Amino acid sequence: MKAYRTVLGWVEQEITEGRLHIGERLPPERSIAQRLNVSRTSVREAIRVLEAMGMARSGVGSGPDAGTLITADPSTPFTSAMRLHFATSHLPAGDIVQTRLLLEAWAVEHIDAASPFLDSARVLLVAMDDPALEAERFLELDAEFHVALAQAAGNVLISTMMGSLRDAIGQYTLDMISNLSDWGATAARLRSEHHAILGAVLTGNPSEASRLVTAHIEGYYREAGFPSRVG
Amino acid sequence: MKAYRTVLGWVEQEITEGRLHIGERLPPERSIAQRLNVSRTSVREAIRVLEAMGMARSGVGSGPDAGTLITADPSTPFTSAMRLHFATSHLPAGDIVQTRLLLEAWAVEHIDAASPFLDSARVLLVAMDDPALEAERFLELDAEFHVALAQAAGNVLISTMMGSLRDAIGQYTLDMISNLSDWGATAARLRSEHHAILGAVLTGNPSEASRLVTAHIEGYYREAGFPSRVG
Repeated sequence: MKAYRTVLGWVEQEITEGRLHIGERLPPERSIAQRLNVSRTSVREAIRVLEAMGMARSGVGSGPDAGTLITADPSTPFTSAMRLHFATSHLPAGDIVQTRLLLEAWAVEHIDAASPFLDSARVLLVAMDDPALEAERFLELDAEFHVALAQAAGNVLISTMMGSLRDAIGQYTLDMISNLSDWGATAARLRSEHHAILGAVLTGNPSEASRLVTAHIEGYYREAGFPSRVG
Repeated sequence: MKAYRTVLGWVEQEITEGRLHIGERLPPERSIAQRLNVSRTSVREAIRVLEAMGMARSGVGSGPDAGTLITADPSTPFTSAMRLHFATSHLPAGDIVQTRLLLEAWAVEHIDAASPFLDSARVLLVAMDDPALEAERFLELDAEFHVALAQAAGNVLISTMMGSLRDAIGQYTLDMISNLSDWGATAARLRSEHHAILGAVLTGNPSEASRLVTAHIEGYYREAGFPSRVG
């Protein structure tokens, strides 16, 4: 086994067995290296991998407080991995869209009416109603609106995957705008569809919300010429 | 920006712009270090992160052929990340089960009848019919059966996530066996449910397959006392 894997295994065991918690610091590199009989370089390599997994943030603080903090950000690895694998074309865009449809339709059917994320969704719609908004900013808010709806369903894994999917194809989605004949008309349609989706959610009509969000996503990708396997 | 991130960004760009392909080797560490004006240690750290992302395999071959191969295994990061985040309890087991139900019910409703993965599923059922099988081995084959069904639906992302979810909670699932009053009776029931699910798929009854797979998963977790949010 490569030495950095020994370090990774040790960290995972410390977390699993409750000796190391989120928000705490890893012991200094030197002490981990001594304890596991590996080089400090190997410890550093393991820390980089933990950073990539959203499990650590290094270079926190300075002086005696400097170190590596244990964190829990499951979106980090999903987003990076999806972006990288999408880049190789081994993860087809159509599969990503299909997955997004599945997760979002499920989410709007399972929304917790008391979730504060519904307030965020409402605020985002108001921001998107600004007619002076540029396309790039509109699409950012649009992505946040969809992620807020997913968060309101209360499943950490599903909302994390949703956010990562959106991030992974974000640049792609932006590039597609040039395929649209009239961005202003598209934006107006997206606005009214968003209001209808949130309306169905707020009036307690989950199956209508699910139908609307599916039509909304499929319609946009079709119009923009996304390579879809939908339908 | 930390130096290893410079290296990661460069690799991603090379892949995205089609100058580096899956199955090819990265240039030697020394040459990447020179080109990007970073240390070889930073290059090594970036390679470790790429390995963790399923994008590279290092230490391939020996002599002049040794090096780091570009790969595309999207299951690697999902599995590691899910296992780690599950260990911190920031990813509740109930959320994982709920996600698994969503993905599997979708998969059996979208199976490609000509998929070779259906043959694998059939072979796995025969293997599980062996009454001498130990519980641990039974559960491994069981997991493979469910992943094969997901693969038969043809969406790379969904089947990858399914496999990672199963791996992430594999040990947990195994530990739960001790909660069962009669493993033999449970195994007999699981066998007949598996045959019924595959039967519904093969006779072209997707909605029945979806209903059966949902009842099958919910039933097992309920019996084993898994902390479920299902229903």
